[in-house]
Amino acid sequence: MNQHPEYLLNKIKSPADLKVLDLEEMKQLASEIRHLIIEKDAAVGGHLGPDLGIVELTIAYHYVFDAPGDKIIWDVSHQTYPHKMLTGRAYAWLDPEAYGKVTPYTNPDESPYDYYAVGHTSTSISLATGMAKARDLLGGSERIMAVIGDGSLTGGMAYEGLNNAALEKGNLVIVINDNQWSIDQNVGGLTTALKKLRDSQGQDPENPFKAFGFDYRYVADGNDLESMINAFSEIRDVDHPLVLHVNTLKGKGYQPAIEDEEKHHWVRPFNLSDDSPKNITAGPTPAEIAVKTVASAIDGGQENIMAITAAIPGVFGLDSFKESYPDHYVDVGIAEQDSVAFAAGFAKAGGQPVLFENSTFLQRAFDQLSHDVAANNLPVVMIVAGGGIQANSKTHVGVFDQVMVSNLPNWKYLAPTSLTEEAAMINWALKQKDGPVAIKLPVRPVPAGGAVLEGYRHIHYQKRRAGKKIAILALGDMQELSSQVAEELNAALYNPLSANILDTDCLDHLARHYQAVITLENNILDGGFGQKVAGYLADRPVLVKTFGEKREYTDVDQSYDQILVRNQLTAEQIVASVKQLFN
Amino acid sequence: MNQHPEYLLNKIKSPADLKVLDLEEMKQLASEIRHLIIEKDAAVGGHLGPDLGIVELTIAYHYVFDAPGDKIIWDVSHQTYPHKMLTGRAYAWLDPEAYGKVTPYTNPDESPYDYYAVGHTSTSISLATGMAKARDLLGGSERIMAVIGDGSLTGGMAYEGLNNAALEKGNLVIVINDNQWSIDQNVGGLTTALKKLRDSQGQDPENPFKAFGFDYRYVADGNDLESMINAFSEIRDVDHPLVLHVNTLKGKGYQPAIEDEEKHHWVRPFNLSDDSPKNITAGPTPAEIAVKTVASAIDGGQENIMAITAAIPGVFGLDSFKESYPDHYVDVGIAEQDSVAFAAGFAKAGGQPVLFENSTFLQRAFDQLSHDVAANNLPVVMIVAGGGIQANSKTHVGVFDQVMVSNLPNWKYLAPTSLTEEAAMINWALKQKDGPVAIKLPVRPVPAGGAVLEGYRHIHYQKRRAGKKIAILALGDMQELSSQVAEELNAALYNPLSANILDTDCLDHLARHYQAVITLENNILDGGFGQKVAGYLADRPVLVKTFGEKREYTDVDQSYDQILVRNQLTAEQIVASVKQLFN
Repeated sequence: MNQHPEYLLNKIKSPADLKVLDLEEMKQLASEIRHLIIEKDAAVGGHLGPDLGIVELTIAYHYVFDAPGDKIIWDVSHQTYPHKMLTGRAYAWLDPEAYGKVTPYTNPDESPYDYYAVGHTSTSISLATGMAKARDLLGGSERIMAVIGDGSLTGGMAYEGLNNAALEKGNLVIVINDNQWSIDQNVGGLTTALKKLRDSQGQDPENPFKAFGFDYRYVADGNDLESMINAFSEIRDVDHPLVLHVNTLKGKGYQPAIEDEEKHHWVRPFNLSDDSPKNITAGPTPAEIAVKTVASAIDGGQENIMAITAAIPGVFGLDSFKESYPDHYVDVGIAEQDSVAFAAGFAKAGGQPVLFENSTFLQRAFDQLSHDVAANNLPVVMIVAGGGIQANSKTHVGVFDQVMVSNLPNWKYLAPTSLTEEAAMINWALKQKDGPVAIKLPVRPVPAGGAVLEGYRHIHYQKRRAGKKIAILALGDMQELSSQVAEELNAALYNPLSANILDTDCLDHLARHYQAVITLENNILDGGFGQKVAGYLADRPVLVKTFGEKREYTDVDQSYDQILVRNQLTAEQIVASVKQLFN
Repeated sequence: MNQHPEYLLNKIKSPADLKVLDLEEMKQLASEIRHLIIEKDAAVGGHLGPDLGIVELTIAYHYVFDAPGDKIIWDVSHQTYPHKMLTGRAYAWLDPEAYGKVTPYTNPDESPYDYYAVGHTSTSISLATGMAKARDLLGGSERIMAVIGDGSLTGGMAYEGLNNAALEKGNLVIVINDNQWSIDQNVGGLTTALKKLRDSQGQDPENPFKAFGFDYRYVADGNDLESMINAFSEIRDVDHPLVLHVNTLKGKGYQPAIEDEEKHHWVRPFNLSDDSPKNITAGPTPAEIAVKTVASAIDGGQENIMAITAAIPGVFGLDSFKESYPDHYVDVGIAEQDSVAFAAGFAKAGGQPVLFENSTFLQRAFDQLSHDVAANNLPVVMIVAGGGIQANSKTHVGVFDQVMVSNLPNWKYLAPTSLTEEAAMINWALKQKDGPVAIKLPVRPVPAGGAVLEGYRHIHYQKRRAGKKIAILALGDMQELSSQVAEELNAALYNPLSANILDTDCLDHLARHYQAVITLENNILDGGFGQKVAGYLADRPVLVKTFGEKREYTDVDQSYDQILVRNQLTAEQIVASVKQLFN
């Protein structure tokens, strides 16, 4: 039920309804939008700071421009709650029962005002430039704008886009939403440059945008609605590329989000009374174990360790690590490519780098994983979070890092089945010098303890259960599910330890002594572990059956259970499917 | 035999020998080095312009600094012939019989003066920054320098590196070797910025490096040895990050390379008398067919086409296309990420982008191929050159693009077996709107003509030869080799058309009617076509045998034939291996 039937927002069905309001009414709207963002985020979580900061900019945009004919490309699109509310989707904030009915990022399937599914940073300038180029070739006249935060600007792709955009001949506006923070505190030379511009009200001559040839304007208070309307009106019909640098306050309207911006970039459900989180999970997480293991190695005397993150310390809880080990921590900003090559350089010079990456953003660094690390066979250690099937936006699925890393030469990709095994693998990886090692943190629940092998230089599959006819190889966090399956089928169960190093002695043994080998992995099947096993055993009579995800994007319209069912990944489905092999 | 026993260079066994020379002797050395570069390149080909331009900078470096204790990281390392000559490897230029004994890029296996195998652009700043960070943690005192060209600076990774390097606390020098050209003519906003700095002798206030917080110096003539020695001496012991902007002349010393820099960036063997190429290949190449097919589509009325390259028009011969179709051509510079996302934006706005990429550099754009193109299912067409096993430097092997693209959802990856089929596939791809299509240009020789299927929306394997017991699926340019194998084995032969869309009806048929299915692909086995077939057929009694490359880097120390033998990929080896299945 609509909790705010009295809100002016109820009358805004599209931006056309906004255009008839006066300034005071639009300020009222801004206040309502802010209240709704906080209210819904407190209940179900979501991005907070980025959305609170961009309310006025969004209202001004839809007041001045004519979407969806005019196009606005929101970088990452994690700041589009106000945009969604003004383009016919306010019901998903007004009515708690409809909270789940609108997706968290821009979504062309959801609205004609959204043009791309997007969730990674730094793409908006390239996308907008491509649209401007097509418009000019096809003779269109729509106005095109990219909106990008200062954090996203540290991604090299944004710079490639700027370099290219500077040469366009027609209308193209790049709004830099400078809220002085990315996910973590902003870092690097760009921060220096933007600060000089802010401090000089846009007048400092050391202006990298002007240096590139852009027309440039500065808005000192991007949270002042009138300033934003004036700024947009002035540049609405420019006939050339222009950078509009807007100073905004991330978290505006919610004091805790202003005081601790990092913690409030994205939030889990919290109590409005005191900002405390609801539903705290108990027990150590795989990420906590990883950080603790690395810290212990330093304590134990391995002083050459450097923990490296690309703007996601929060994913691992690296903040307290940073405080305790300031000399052993680097955040390179949103710059995954740099993080990996920087680690290669650090390793080459005798240091022991430990990359803390997450699966989906690591996609940016495929070339560096190959060219800089693998081709040079440097002992880089990489911890990967979020690698596995998840009910998430299709831009954020975690099923490609294993495909990327495990098909490259020299990389050893390990997947622990328990927290104890995770720590053992990290400890081993930190001591070896053979080459690069990636460790995939469990995404599904895994047990804390259990017997683990020590040393992973050679991979010997660990037998967990004896059985007949059928042998199951269950990678990483699929081990628990497989125990259940193995019981039902009276199958042998193995822990294969690695996604890409096959224990061929064991596989040869299985081929001789079993009728079927079953593989399970928390990954897509294409390019995965199961296909490697199938490829190896394909010229033997033994049957192989691979379980994993189909090669297709899932999205938030499917629950985790639905995704499992769709991919034949419940215990019942697996058991039934294996039994069919023998019919 | 040494062709120049009188050269002073014969006395230079290491940089120590250089340090005792006077300025005139070093100028003599520069002249000798230039002569040798031209002489060897004329005979066997290689990088030309970049090496001719960097002679004085290299001599000055080794005169002023103390390598290999001091570290110099050469971006791409295609400009390191002078460096190699001064660090004990001049014999590979002095003696034609030794021409092949030194590799074309930096190579740690070859010399302690080389630190990385490197061949892609824009990595040097990140690598150097990682080394500086390790030095400072471990208490070292070596001086660290990255040398990067203005072309490589357009890669976003270089900018990520700059952003990070700006914050370092110790000695770190980034030399920008500004020769005003990358592989093709330099493009974009950075060009504008660098030109302003050159025109003002480094004084223009719109200085992006100063904006980032770097100390900055300018050298007006980087080909003047004394200037370079003075510049390096002054900044040798800086205790902070510094950008040294050096203006050099690409191709200096060989007039044709100055007049047409693009053509002389990398050269095949040529006649010194008139710069004409030796050994011109006859008949159209796959690249020429691709460009011609796209041009014909525009001529035929498809006016919405845009050919997009990331600084490698020469790989495809796009220069004449650019002249004929200037409105249908964009070069985004060395910026593969941008090229792919720009194509996504162009497609979204109703245009038909055609990306011209090569396999090894495309590695930079994995995330964009997924996040921007595939997750949005946009009908981007991509032509991939160099995708296949080759005797090349390990940084340039072309066996990962198929792994990247073909394991992503929505992408259809086609592999033509003839030039006629290549044109048919491109024509079909340009007309369809289902989603993204990649087309892998043949690397091995393929026939010009032959019967082709029309339309590839659904993949139906094309039967080429009837046979018994054994069915061969030979992808793309492996078809010719397979014809020979099929004859010997009296096997059925199929053209599977696609690396990632399986014709499951046909595979089901093969599983019922044949005892073995053989796959061949010009790619690594891991994550490849054969493992998909093996995965699909693994739960049937039919045997599957996959042929392709092992998951390991090859390098220039192996010939193409040696690589084939090592991977069991000669016709004789394949026949023998298949026969063994039936023993």
